[in-house]
Amino acid sequence: MNDRPEQPGPVAVVGAGTIGAGWAAYFALSGLQVRVADPSGEAPALVAATLERARPVMAALGRLSETPTVPRVFTDVAGAVQGAAHIQEALPEDMALKRRVYAQIEAAAPREAVLASSSSGLLPSALQEGMQHPERMLVVHPNNPPYLMPLVEIVAGRMTDPSILALTKSFYESLGKRTIVLRREVVGHIFNRLQAALWREAIHLVAGGYASAEDVDRAVVEGLGARWSVCGPLEILHLSGGEAGLAGSLDRLGPALQAWWGDLGEPRLDATTKQAVIASVDEAMRGSSYAERAARRDRLMIPLLASSLTDPDAAAR
Amino acid sequence: MNDRPEQPGPVAVVGAGTIGAGWAAYFALSGLQVRVADPSGEAPALVAATLERARPVMAALGRLSETPTVPRVFTDVAGAVQGAAHIQEALPEDMALKRRVYAQIEAAAPREAVLASSSSGLLPSALQEGMQHPERMLVVHPNNPPYLMPLVEIVAGRMTDPSILALTKSFYESLGKRTIVLRREVVGHIFNRLQAALWREAIHLVAGGYASAEDVDRAVVEGLGARWSVCGPLEILHLSGGEAGLAGSLDRLGPALQAWWGDLGEPRLDATTKQAVIASVDEAMRGSSYAERAARRDRLMIPLLASSLTDPDAAAR
Repeated sequence: MNDRPEQPGPVAVVGAGTIGAGWAAYFALSGLQVRVADPSGEAPALVAATLERARPVMAALGRLSETPTVPRVFTDVAGAVQGAAHIQEALPEDMALKRRVYAQIEAAAPREAVLASSSSGLLPSALQEGMQHPERMLVVHPNNPPYLMPLVEIVAGRMTDPSILALTKSFYESLGKRTIVLRREVVGHIFNRLQAALWREAIHLVAGGYASAEDVDRAVVEGLGARWSVCGPLEILHLSGGEAGLAGSLDRLGPALQAWWGDLGEPRLDATTKQAVIASVDEAMRGSSYAERAARRDRLMIPLLASSLTDPDAAAR
Repeated sequence: MNDRPEQPGPVAVVGAGTIGAGWAAYFALSGLQVRVADPSGEAPALVAATLERARPVMAALGRLSETPTVPRVFTDVAGAVQGAAHIQEALPEDMALKRRVYAQIEAAAPREAVLASSSSGLLPSALQEGMQHPERMLVVHPNNPPYLMPLVEIVAGRMTDPSILALTKSFYESLGKRTIVLRREVVGHIFNRLQAALWREAIHLVAGGYASAEDVDRAVVEGLGARWSVCGPLEILHLSGGEAGLAGSLDRLGPALQAWWGDLGEPRLDATTKQAVIASVDEAMRGSSYAERAARRDRLMIPLLASSLTDPDAAAR
């Protein structure tokens, strides 16, 4: 007899780009056996480098297992998924490619292995088409990088078995993830639709010459984002109504809101727009390298996430 | 001879709703003489209550003056603006009302007093029409509440004197505000256009039945917002391109981004939409009162803002 929960079986990660390598590091540092499939000659080095970058992050977040593992990298899908209990697909966002690889996965993986796609926006029902066992497939899209950001969104397709959905939710939660389950699938899921909405207006404001990229980003970092990290947009609207709540707020603000919506930009990503935004962002970065800015972001985010992960009030939401 | 900068003259706040009372508390606790104009019988109590709510917040942020004052409330505009060096207008978002009151302000205020409108979205050029001295008028729109949030956006109209713009920017910065100056005026300025973009998609996702209000807010609070409080949307896009930067990111993500943009919701705030969102937000609040949720928001935001206000890295941006 043993009180400890059963150790989940090995996890396979299919595709070792940035996201796949991030998942591999996350699962390995959570103590699971991890097998990665990627034919690229650069995959082993990327997986190893990501594991080392992730280790201090997971430690700072209090998420490093006492028995971390090291992912094994295979060049073929079959080698990685054999005997896997859970498969995290992290291929490029290409429907045809994903479907082709799903056939290879189904040919080699155990019948009962769950197939979770990291797709950032494709519909799971579309990804399920042509699968032999579509009922075990769903989307589990992480906030990137998975070893730093706590949240995943889970999207079932038309053919997903509800018990697989429940099982998958529990699996990620047992590893410390917080989960959101969509009620209906939609292109771009939630994270990227909300991001895309903000990106669209940010790009419009810069390309239209209303503000610099630096000032648009400052409006978010020093103003809106601070609030959004504490209070979601719908609660903000609710609280702005005072005792009258969202109904009061929509009565008072509704006409202005509708007018602003009607005036929001609808930029197209043509050469002129891209050039204007790239030039303004380059100016904002003032010659800082990718490594400098990425390190700065992680340095500022870790204490924030560490406190939110341990804030009982935030966790209870 | 005296090394201390000259104490700015009295500030008048015209309109004592939530925003005006917040401004009055902010200026008074910053050590300035404050005169508030509001005909409502409830104004004195609201101003006093806001001052007491703001005091511990300003103290926690390290912004409480050693010589705070108490705002004086006048029922008439003329009484409040006489002798004022700076006038903060915080009337309801009603163009005709604001123009009417501007005439009263100009009849009683010193010729050289700056008139800063807190308008959340009206164009300063439109507000200047009919003014005797439009060159001293501009928009200074705060993140709300002004005693908590550090950022203001400043928008000049066609007739604003550039030296008034520079003077006004310095004035708010001398009181510890961070400023963003728009390059071109636009309906909704920056804060509310970005907020409106996020609100539109958030409302669409809930009203369309894709996700609960609670989950949409969690996607922001536990995921996107944490990142946005550290890194603006344009820098996020830039960093997601790795060494290839924004150009690489737009090449890779551009098609998906354009597809998501094409699919974003365009809800109308009709009775059905309002009802769906109000019901889902009510469910998310689980019976918490306005006071409870507002206190929670402030409690979580103060340490966040206090650290960002003293983070040299963030301040240097």
